Amino acid sequence: MVAGGIQANISSVPDVTYEALGLDRSKATPKETHEALVKRYKDPAQGAGKGTMGEYWEPIPYSMYLDPATFYKPPTSMRDKASRKECVECHTDESPVWVQAWKRSTHANLDKVRKLQPSDPTYYKKAKLEEVEANLRSIGKLGEKEPLKEVGCIDCHVSINADSKQKIDHSKDLVMPTADVCGTCHLREFAERESERDTMIWPNGQWPDGRPSHALDYSANVETTVWAAMPQREVAEGCTMCHTNQNKCDSCHTRHEFSAAESRKPEACATCHSGVDHNNWETYSMSKHGKMVAMLGDKWNWEAPLKDAYAVGGQNAPTCAGCHFEYEGEYTHNITRKIRWANYPFVPGIAENITSDWSEARLDSWVVTCTQCHSERFARSYLELMDKGTLEGLAKYQEAHELVEKLYKTGNLTGQKTNRPAPPEPEKPGFHIFTQLFWSKGNNPASIELKVLEMAENDLAKMHVGLAHTNPGGWTYTEGWGPINRAYVEIQDEHTKMQAMAALQERVNKLDGKKTSLLDITTPEEKISLGGLGGGLLLAGTLALIGWRSRKRKQA
Amino acid sequence: MVAGGIQANISSVPDVTYEALGLDRSKATPKETHEALVKRYKDPAQGAGKGTMGEYWEPIPYSMYLDPATFYKPPTSMRDKASRKECVECHTDESPVWVQAWKRSTHANLDKVRKLQPSDPTYYKKAKLEEVEANLRSIGKLGEKEPLKEVGCIDCHVSINADSKQKIDHSKDLVMPTADVCGTCHLREFAERESERDTMIWPNGQWPDGRPSHALDYSANVETTVWAAMPQREVAEGCTMCHTNQNKCDSCHTRHEFSAAESRKPEACATCHSGVDHNNWETYSMSKHGKMVAMLGDKWNWEAPLKDAYAVGGQNAPTCAGCHFEYEGEYTHNITRKIRWANYPFVPGIAENITSDWSEARLDSWVVTCTQCHSERFARSYLELMDKGTLEGLAKYQEAHELVEKLYKTGNLTGQKTNRPAPPEPEKPGFHIFTQLFWSKGNNPASIELKVLEMAENDLAKMHVGLAHTNPGGWTYTEGWGPINRAYVEIQDEHTKMQAMAALQERVNKLDGKKTSLLDITTPEEKISLGGLGGGLLLAGTLALIGWRSRKRKQA
Amino acid sequence: MVAGGIQANISSVPDVTYEALGLDRSKATPKETHEALVKRYKDPAQGAGKGTMGEYWEPIPYSMYLDPATFYKPPTSMRDKASRKECVECHTDESPVWVQAWKRSTHANLDKVRKLQPSDPTYYKKAKLEEVEANLRSIGKLGEKEPLKEVGCIDCHVSINADSKQKIDHSKDLVMPTADVCGTCHLREFAERESERDTMIWPNGQWPDGRPSHALDYSANVETTVWAAMPQREVAEGCTMCHTNQNKCDSCHTRHEFSAAESRKPEACATCHSGVDHNNWETYSMSKHGKMVAMLGDKWNWEAPLKDAYAVGGQNAPTCAGCHFEYEGEYTHNITRKIRWANYPFVPGIAENITSDWSEARLDSWVVTCTQCHSERFARSYLELMDKGTLEGLAKYQEAHELVEKLYKTGNLTGQKTNRPAPPEPEKPGFHIFTQLFWSKGNNPASIELKVLEMAENDLAKMHVGLAHTNPGGWTYTEGWGPINRAYVEIQDEHTKMQAMAALQERVNKLDGKKTSLLDITTPEEKISLGGLGGGLLLAGTLALIGWRSRKRKQA
Repeated sequence: MVAGGIQANISSVPDVTYEALGLDRSKATPKETHEALVKRYKDPAQGAGKGTMGEYWEPIPYSMYLDPATFYKPPTSMRDKASRKECVECHTDESPVWVQAWKRSTHANLDKVRKLQPSDPTYYKKAKLEEVEANLRSIGKLGEKEPLKEVGCIDCHVSINADSKQKIDHSKDLVMPTADVCGTCHLREFAERESERDTMIWPNGQWPDGRPSHALDYSANVETTVWAAMPQREVAEGCTMCHTNQNKCDSCHTRHEFSAAESRKPEACATCHSGVDHNNWETYSMSKHGKMVAMLGDKWNWEAPLKDAYAVGGQNAPTCAGCHFEYEGEYTHNITRKIRWANYPFVPGIAENITSDWSEARLDSWVVTCTQCHSERFARSYLELMDKGTLEGLAKYQEAHELVEKLYKTGNLTGQKTNRPAPPEPEKPGFHIFTQLFWSKGNNPASIELKVLEMAENDLAKMHVGLAHTNPGGWTYTEGWGPINRAYVEIQDEHTKMQAMAALQERVNKLDGKKTSLLDITTPEEKISLGGLGGGLLLAGTLALIGWRSRKRKQA
Repeated sequence: MVAGGIQANISSVPDVTYEALGLDRSKATPKETHEALVKRYKDPAQGAGKGTMGEYWEPIPYSMYLDPATFYKPPTSMRDKASRKECVECHTDESPVWVQAWKRSTHANLDKVRKLQPSDPTYYKKAKLEEVEANLRSIGKLGEKEPLKEVGCIDCHVSINADSKQKIDHSKDLVMPTADVCGTCHLREFAERESERDTMIWPNGQWPDGRPSHALDYSANVETTVWAAMPQREVAEGCTMCHTNQNKCDSCHTRHEFSAAESRKPEACATCHSGVDHNNWETYSMSKHGKMVAMLGDKWNWEAPLKDAYAVGGQNAPTCAGCHFEYEGEYTHNITRKIRWANYPFVPGIAENITSDWSEARLDSWVVTCTQCHSERFARSYLELMDKGTLEGLAKYQEAHELVEKLYKTGNLTGQKTNRPAPPEPEKPGFHIFTQLFWSKGNNPASIELKVLEMAENDLAKMHVGLAHTNPGGWTYTEGWGPINRAYVEIQDEHTKMQAMAALQERVNKLDGKKTSLLDITTPEEKISLGGLGGGLLLAGTLALIGWRSRKRKQA
Repeated sequence: MVAGGIQANISSVPDVTYEALGLDRSKATPKETHEALVKRYKDPAQGAGKGTMGEYWEPIPYSMYLDPATFYKPPTSMRDKASRKECVECHTDESPVWVQAWKRSTHANLDKVRKLQPSDPTYYKKAKLEEVEANLRSIGKLGEKEPLKEVGCIDCHVSINADSKQKIDHSKDLVMPTADVCGTCHLREFAERESERDTMIWPNGQWPDGRPSHALDYSANVETTVWAAMPQREVAEGCTMCHTNQNKCDSCHTRHEFSAAESRKPEACATCHSGVDHNNWETYSMSKHGKMVAMLGDKWNWEAPLKDAYAVGGQNAPTCAGCHFEYEGEYTHNITRKIRWANYPFVPGIAENITSDWSEARLDSWVVTCTQCHSERFARSYLELMDKGTLEGLAKYQEAHELVEKLYKTGNLTGQKTNRPAPPEPEKPGFHIFTQLFWSKGNNPASIELKVLEMAENDLAKMHVGLAHTNPGGWTYTEGWGPINRAYVEIQDEHTKMQAMAALQERVNKLDGKKTSLLDITTPEEKISLGGLGGGLLLAGTLALIGWRSRKRKQA
């Protein structure tokens, strides 16, 4: 047994993962564990690569950096061969900041780690290095008594612990490191992260197994119909920019310094966990928790590992990592074990599940988290406020949703009978679908339909997220309830106006003795009479639409 | 006279407060001053507790932490007895971060304060401690020559300067400290804060006496009809989350380090003073003032008291506290003495008052503030820009308001005659009322009505606040005038469309020989004919409404 | 030749500028260079002062601080005379923070600069000081061997290197320093900045020569019709607050410390480069680039000049200045040499130009910038994503624009025939004009018209800016494509509803045997019949409008 106990039985990896991998946790070597993890990780049937909608989309050049395993090709422009040392020398000129950052990294300073004293907050890195070396020995990459000298360019981009005499050919040998490459050395963290596939299991399939999580976030991306369907690939790849944690580790551990201290700071999560439908950063950073970190954080020692952040690091307010990496007192890279609402309270089955045993057990785990700084009664009363407040927002949304859905079911959304093109495949026509946030054509979706959809996807999500991050303005007035109230008012108002218009149309129908529904324009002459109002464009658009639908039929 | 001159005559407390308390400032002892302050502070007739609308709402469990004086009960789950020392020992395990923070606090390190040298920026704390001890002696909590040893858990949560042998029973003795508890030691700051009740008096009752202020912010909250009326208590308590300064001091002085340096930083104000209708933080932090603090603040010594922040602390740009705690060169916890616009220029009587002697005197006080860094001419010309710019936004709003109000007066708002349920009590039906920002049902409010209301409550408020905090984007285009212009355009557009619809309805009326107003649907058959458009739901809603109105009548 | 090579041939100033100034770069002395620059700088025909629309607007008192050359007058309230030393003494009381900041500045500590050692990151300041002294000698402000003693109040506000015995009269001698005053000493930086006039030349006049740039940003402001036209001068001056770099240097180099380190920080750009139509700050600061700077920047040495920021300063992520001041490896105050999209992709000729040789050459310059940290292939693939993504947003906007423009061309915008007052002069009536973002009256603009205008000016601009600053949420969902999609949906929906209304009106026309267009109310009785709906106000407004138009005719 080496220090860190990595030879077998990675303590921080749950039993369900060993079971899923078919491994005996008391016996599995690092080599066996890594191999089993990587087999699953690379399996297209289990979430690797283009996914089931892959036929509908093509990568753009930049995609190779988002899913290197699928799309990366070594550069053909560079045919020189280089050794470990020459990589560094040449790139000091070619891309100097890479090299400067790496020189400050732990990767380039392993001997410093070996000399750390127990009084140093980063002393844990010494044991970590020993664990890494044990992993490499198990895998045959390091001799029994050989110390790891450094982790340089060549180790991650070609071959770990490559011989100093080895020359690599850029155009053939170069790889972009994927999470399994990092996981060769950092097996514990990789295994923890991959365990999200096994612990994030919803009681009634509210979300697919293993989701939401970092372990399957790329899969979640490419399995979204609008993502696969939309012709604007550069917009779609905007989503992918964040949905790459499955593929790579450098969203949180930015290259090439890979500072652990950096990744503990709240800002490490901000670029991805922010915005109109998952404003975790905004609510947290505007909460008292977030502001205390902003005010006091410069006095803390961020080099201390998460478990020591309060006692050793001097921290006295919570960070993203501090609460979300923690589970029952232990800190791991499986950060979804306390998920109950998953940001989106309108997803069917989420609200109904919130008082289940499954959810109550997770709430109890949250209480463990909160009671580091608060009393249990305080924590439980706040979590109750969070749950009930979320349900209040949900009820208001549901009332508006019912109103608009009835319009759809009776065919009375604006343009529903005349100008509602089908979305591109693999999407199917539907009411109030996620796709409509990013795709539209003619009157698909109707304005009132998009509004109630955004009420769910954005406003209600923000209301919950504001509650979850103790940001009163985030659920009460600026985001959450205030905007939900506004959307409700606008939907009710438009609904009443549509009724008035329909009633008037009915009266005119009676007057000239015929029956026509709202916006239901069926005779050619009426179409022509609209020319002056842009009807010509509408006709042209409709014709184009017909042609496009025909093409799709041919494809099918 | 002890150091700090606290025995009588707290120099920083204005005469009006001594007068209001019936005290002679030259003679009142700390004990007498504290007692007089607390008597008023705890008086339900003067703003303590549930307020005049208390019968309409019930607290939720979390409310005990927001108004402890009214709702807090000691925990029944914990029956152990503990001494001063045992509190600390046990909570080192139970809630470790409390204890860690406290150990870093001045409260836990009084001897360090006693040893401060005049060259230390925190030397003022030495005099402060002597003042605190004098207060405790006056009140009989400290012997004549006895030094205060520490301020530990037991002192604030049970009894100040409790004997080290005293054992407390959690289930009986525990209290959540309210402002008057803090004010026992920190009498000067408590008295300054409480003096807001006496100095924030509007010439024509534009706001109630003593408001807006921190001293009565909880009262302002529970005396707001929509807050008392709305059934969504978890949303309502979102408002309360910030409106607790009346009750507690820990919004700015976060527990349990209570760092004065922290509370001087702008972020200390941000969680509450931000958002759609009081975006003080956003405008300040995006202004040059705020950005200079963000860029340079890490070189300043925030431990220096506000009066020394520039000269000793090295500060060279203004913070929230730096400008708002200052009044005529002195820094106190009465921070509303320069209020002129109170964030909301549409409140009747505010704009009309802006050139009054009352307001001019306050403007002159602002000039004192600004001339620490700017010339008087610069300051006055900017303040004139602020006032006139605010009036420009107000005029634009008023034009839109008049248009919409006329619709209301003639009964022509959408659904006004058919689907405008009354708000819950204690609110009364009305046009363009604050309640509609947080409560809605059917067509109450109409969309155009809410829009013009938000123009006042949000856009115009943000315009003024942007001007007041020297953030050009905040009044010109991103917030303020740009959004006001947009709302005006949308209101005018909808108004014209409603006219066209009404005109068409009139023509149809003539054609089939009857008279019907816009959206005025009175015959049963017409109601039935709307079924296909969601009219069924409307009917059901209307029936429910009738039932609900009956219930209300019974209550009345 | 003195150190820094300033005597002639300022290496960082491009040839085109020497040519434009009629100077031989190999011979021009600092004196000649400064004189030629200042002549152009102060020439009203080349952008100085009120501009061609000056007759339409008047300054407000605060304007003197925004364009001091045109509007500043020495204060009449202060008639004392003061020497160099007395300025400092008196203002230590009068405006203490000025003096405190100045005392920390390099200006007040020139001898410290002279003693800098090569190992100091600020060693470059030594050469800079020698360059400044050479400039002053060339101009006759400093003796041949005389060292510059200090830069005090009097030097910038009255006369550079004024004699210590000279007494100045506030009411006669005081000036507010303009950029040319700073440029007397800092000739290199002034000349670099002024060279933007010569390098920012668009191939087809997409923007006027020299724009956008800091060198002509005040001119750009006062030459905007709505700015000159709008009666709300305090709103208009909100725009000017940022558009003053042409006039003064203190937006980036805040007075009176003028810290170079401060101006290198991203926050230095934030107050101006932010907001609804140029959200550079928001996208950058939320990008991984920006967040890395936020997380790691406190470990960097910001005193290092930009060229040494990575290698010496320890920086490992890009700042605003780091990328935008760089051009082909050199850092100068001409920061517009790589502009290709200019934030506004809808401006005619911008998108069409994006693959031209002109634009490709600038893209190649960006690749030089990016490859400090990224591979060329990475950089080029991302820049391609940026261009194509921008075009996708543009196409979606154009579809909506065509729809709305057709409504305008057929006279069918809401109220277009009845209630569309002309904008104030010098603006002319038009469709979808910038003016409508800040000016409105009646139904000018129509709501749908403003929406499609904001789609271009705000949403599409933000989409590009998000792409340009690698902020996925900024182009995909929160800003950019998501809002563009929403606006498209709302425009299509309203368009369909307007068609339905027009069709119904047509049917009623046929029924009562007459012809009336949408919202086209021409007979007096119909106008009167609208009284109950606010038509009275409309009439009054229309009458007022007629009166106002007459007045304008008289003026013309």
